[in-house]
Amino acid sequence: MELGIKELAAGIDTVWVLLCAALVLFMEAGFAFLEAGFIRAKNSLNIVMKVFTDTTVGMLGFWAVGFGIMYGMDVAGLFGGSGFFLGGSLEHIDLRIPIPAFWIFQAAFAMVVASIISGAVAERMKFSSYIIFTLTCTAFMYPVAGHWIWGAGGWLGELGMLDFAGSAAVHAVGGWAALAAVLVLGPRSGKYNEDGSVNVLPAHNMHLAFLGTFILWFGWFGFNPGSSLSGLDLNIARIALTTNLAAAAGGTAGILFTMRRYGKADPSMAANGALAGLAAITAGTAFVGPGSAVIIGLVAGVLVVLAVEFFDRIKADDPVGAIAVHGVGGTWGVLAVGLFAREGGLFFGGGAHQLLVQALGAASVSLWAFGVTYLVFLLLKATMGVRVSPQEEMEGLDLNEHGITAYTGLAAGSLKRVGDSAAHGAEGVGMPVSNPLTVR
Amino acid sequence: MELGIKELAAGIDTVWVLLCAALVLFMEAGFAFLEAGFIRAKNSLNIVMKVFTDTTVGMLGFWAVGFGIMYGMDVAGLFGGSGFFLGGSLEHIDLRIPIPAFWIFQAAFAMVVASIISGAVAERMKFSSYIIFTLTCTAFMYPVAGHWIWGAGGWLGELGMLDFAGSAAVHAVGGWAALAAVLVLGPRSGKYNEDGSVNVLPAHNMHLAFLGTFILWFGWFGFNPGSSLSGLDLNIARIALTTNLAAAAGGTAGILFTMRRYGKADPSMAANGALAGLAAITAGTAFVGPGSAVIIGLVAGVLVVLAVEFFDRIKADDPVGAIAVHGVGGTWGVLAVGLFAREGGLFFGGGAHQLLVQALGAASVSLWAFGVTYLVFLLLKATMGVRVSPQEEMEGLDLNEHGITAYTGLAAGSLKRVGDSAAHGAEGVGMPVSNPLTVR
Amino acid sequence: MELGIKELAAGIDTVWVLLCAALVLFMEAGFAFLEAGFIRAKNSLNIVMKVFTDTTVGMLGFWAVGFGIMYGMDVAGLFGGSGFFLGGSLEHIDLRIPIPAFWIFQAAFAMVVASIISGAVAERMKFSSYIIFTLTCTAFMYPVAGHWIWGAGGWLGELGMLDFAGSAAVHAVGGWAALAAVLVLGPRSGKYNEDGSVNVLPAHNMHLAFLGTFILWFGWFGFNPGSSLSGLDLNIARIALTTNLAAAAGGTAGILFTMRRYGKADPSMAANGALAGLAAITAGTAFVGPGSAVIIGLVAGVLVVLAVEFFDRIKADDPVGAIAVHGVGGTWGVLAVGLFAREGGLFFGGGAHQLLVQALGAASVSLWAFGVTYLVFLLLKATMGVRVSPQEEMEGLDLNEHGITAYTGLAAGSLKRVGDSAAHGAEGVGMPVSNPLTVR
Repeated sequence: MELGIKELAAGIDTVWVLLCAALVLFMEAGFAFLEAGFIRAKNSLNIVMKVFTDTTVGMLGFWAVGFGIMYGMDVAGLFGGSGFFLGGSLEHIDLRIPIPAFWIFQAAFAMVVASIISGAVAERMKFSSYIIFTLTCTAFMYPVAGHWIWGAGGWLGELGMLDFAGSAAVHAVGGWAALAAVLVLGPRSGKYNEDGSVNVLPAHNMHLAFLGTFILWFGWFGFNPGSSLSGLDLNIARIALTTNLAAAAGGTAGILFTMRRYGKADPSMAANGALAGLAAITAGTAFVGPGSAVIIGLVAGVLVVLAVEFFDRIKADDPVGAIAVHGVGGTWGVLAVGLFAREGGLFFGGGAHQLLVQALGAASVSLWAFGVTYLVFLLLKATMGVRVSPQEEMEGLDLNEHGITAYTGLAAGSLKRVGDSAAHGAEGVGMPVSNPLTVR
Repeated sequence: MELGIKELAAGIDTVWVLLCAALVLFMEAGFAFLEAGFIRAKNSLNIVMKVFTDTTVGMLGFWAVGFGIMYGMDVAGLFGGSGFFLGGSLEHIDLRIPIPAFWIFQAAFAMVVASIISGAVAERMKFSSYIIFTLTCTAFMYPVAGHWIWGAGGWLGELGMLDFAGSAAVHAVGGWAALAAVLVLGPRSGKYNEDGSVNVLPAHNMHLAFLGTFILWFGWFGFNPGSSLSGLDLNIARIALTTNLAAAAGGTAGILFTMRRYGKADPSMAANGALAGLAAITAGTAFVGPGSAVIIGLVAGVLVVLAVEFFDRIKADDPVGAIAVHGVGGTWGVLAVGLFAREGGLFFGGGAHQLLVQALGAASVSLWAFGVTYLVFLLLKATMGVRVSPQEEMEGLDLNEHGITAYTGLAAGSLKRVGDSAAHGAEGVGMPVSNPLTVR
Repeated sequence: MELGIKELAAGIDTVWVLLCAALVLFMEAGFAFLEAGFIRAKNSLNIVMKVFTDTTVGMLGFWAVGFGIMYGMDVAGLFGGSGFFLGGSLEHIDLRIPIPAFWIFQAAFAMVVASIISGAVAERMKFSSYIIFTLTCTAFMYPVAGHWIWGAGGWLGELGMLDFAGSAAVHAVGGWAALAAVLVLGPRSGKYNEDGSVNVLPAHNMHLAFLGTFILWFGWFGFNPGSSLSGLDLNIARIALTTNLAAAAGGTAGILFTMRRYGKADPSMAANGALAGLAAITAGTAFVGPGSAVIIGLVAGVLVVLAVEFFDRIKADDPVGAIAVHGVGGTWGVLAVGLFAREGGLFFGGGAHQLLVQALGAASVSLWAFGVTYLVFLLLKATMGVRVSPQEEMEGLDLNEHGITAYTGLAAGSLKRVGDSAAHGAEGVGMPVSNPLTVR
């Protein structure tokens, strides 16, 4: 092949988008371990399985249906209608990169939306119903909202809404959908007392939670800069800068604000502060300066603490803080574009127009996500059921849904010392758990 | 330096290959934690050490000898004979990227083969023998098979065998070598009863196992697309697409097939299903369409469940399912090229020729890998021994081979509460384990 | 935009530097888990919080002040004086990549220095004092040393010191600062006995420690090759090669040398050996050949074992071996350039000049780092205090500084079996730990 400027440009962009897609897909590991770490051990494998379902079943749903609805030929500004199974007409997608590269990057985004929600429904939602829900999320709910903002001809995009990498399309959609899910599901048994007080259902493994946090932050290097879809767009440097400053500011706020408010730096709020900063900067990352990014992150880091408290007060039981991080953080981020954008932001002399468009956009996709999810959950509740039995909830979802626990025999196998060998031979024999790798 | 098209092209390709090599090398972490999680805690540090040995000692073996055998000047289609210690004539390697970039990418592949095998021999193989085995694997066994397929002049490559990123060269070779190793080693004590029934030796930490799975999937973004060795080959977009769809399909099959077969979605089969999908698509990723990738992955995800059951039935004790995932999955993938390749595939009107070549190739490298490994293990058994003593096996390899356990004092240090402080001062004093970081 | 050679070149370089920066930032996860794994569970969340503080508060400190001191307009060869808050004159930075891309890469380096030190002060340093220290490190201590070597006009750079990616600027600085910190802090309670013997304060989770090790190694693909700041500099291939060979050699030495010395392969020394190899090759990675890289790594892997023993003998209590890995390993690496550099190295006929310059450079930045850190720690000790109370140390920093433990309820929630359900309902109710995600 004769190589010229055109071929090189396509190569650079494709390399960029594929590597960014890899980072975004790796965020699924981040969600899995963030959520597993924040909940009790007895349900922690189930949540990983749910996120793994997003990544596997959910990806197939996006392939079969979701991508076509999101990026297919526009129908009335509301949804797309081609590209199902990656077939049909997609000429309106005018990019230097091949369609499959664009597809894999977008598919990873769809999974992220599902995995935001999985955390909020942790410790009580049935696995079988979750599979159905994930499919509706990656194949229908998210793609419609995404089409409005990012699809060619989508009505919010046409209005001039700015949502560079998805504070609205991904994070607000995921966060407010999570609220709907939580309201239908109800809180975990034992979480709230009749006198209004709240019981502690503690995070069982904060290292897992921080591993998730670090992986998510790492993945955001793909999520935001990769949304340029071009490595030749040098604005990716600014995007990486503002993304990281907002994350740092959000984490800083989480640390310092809880030191002042609770007397101790709260680890889960430090993590969620950084994540809220990331969710918030995602809309404006390409449009704001570094100082604004720091402010956006600091505000997000404070908001997430207040929001977690608020949702507990209204008994919307979200074990991992997903509604606070993604719903509140994401919505704040969408509005912040209207305030801080160097062109069109209220604080930079651009007047209120952009801010109003942003508010309309945030409200529209949030209501859509909330409403569809509420309906789907009601439907699931009326048919297959959305919640495990109280007995199963008490025993743990891991044993009941998957037949094993996350840490079988951890104590027996690791904490014994030389000489305690009597018990070793028997270990694993006749245990009531099923074997992950053997004949049943 | 004056920059022109040629320099830019070399830069793009080098950036691409190096970043993909980083992803493949990171797969070593994936293997380490997948395998550690699937086995009992008392042997879990030993398996990490074995994978770490692949990554360190194994890399030096590939540098000194393996690379030369695999990619050196061809001798009779059977092996290479230059490039030892990265010296000697390598002009026949005609790439836009510098040789060191090619080397590091290939070195990572050699380690992967060794780390496939490490899982199958877990919980009973001697560490010192393992060091020797790893060296034979990265310096000799894998490079010969690899030369046949990928070396300039290798006889299988000359025959037209298609194995884009190594379903045969890496996965079938690793998987069938693992079977040979397991047959010589024998099963773990207590695994099989005299009446033919099977005991559960449970996975001690499923979060570690899933961490490994996610990292391996992430690393496959380098493994398959990086095998193009060029970021200007826009087929990398299709490769990333088919790779991910096959993984998603394999994981989906693992979830749904076990729900039907066992009544519950099996987490280890979900993980191994995705990995089997990945091992299977690796040969054909550049040659098949997305629909075929989904089918290849679904079949792999079902096959892996049946294969795990089968190998337990014949008492080939593979604690992590490596033979099923890589041996069976990889072999299926090699054959699938003959069925699904858009050019030459049986289902696409290409007749049976490619399929027969694929079958010959898969059989040849599998027999080679099985035979050499069988011999090496027999030799090791006759000399230094391959297996720890029953006493050591009962107490755990971590204490006996390394003097510490994976989780020393986890309970003591973490699960106590304020007020339980009496025991804290004494903790760590006079323990029978050795100190990782102190004078002995 | 019209695309030409210039635009493409800028794109390639920017893509390269941003992805490398992502890898380096991910190293923070590596430090967090390496350090957490090597220490006792009761303090392991606190150390993760400290590393997270480096990543968040520390990044803001580098933004506000550090970057300007390191890369601002030179003042007398000693420090920079522009670029604070990314404002002011930065025209002297002449790169194809945008300043924000350069900034984010450099910011990640500043955090690494802080996170090297965090490990050495683990299990006893106050969190609030640590926040202040991190700020002085990323905003002042490291940037001054960095300016000397890498800043335009820095005096060591002007002398011809070679430190490609920071064996001196990052690793020796971090390591010797850690020694100063440890000397002021004093050893952990119960570590050393009056008769001079040493107690074991065991690593609580070696899987976490290896996870950290693998992530750090992975991140070094960004750290060293990315320091080229250009993907068009094909020397990045050699850099990736020598980096990996040195890591492999260091790990090999850690395994084999401890097998000979202690009778068993020591896991923590295997990990620290590889890391010492990495710290050592970092200065010369762009200047030495693969054989030299292997030697540099082997020596580093042996040195780290001896150094860990030595620092315990002088009662400089470093729970993770950071002084040995980064201080000793890094210093050895700086000197090794003077020995092994293909141009100017003593062993390659270059005479002793480069070696002497290297020695001067290593001594200068090490003394600076040691001295400043010693003073800052003395100041902190005299004002807010640097050390938790003996009571807090006994109970653990996690509970006292953050109100929760790393693994709350791990045993209760995971190790119970079906039928043991009586306790489940009560679990989490009335626990003395605070709730990470609820109203206080």
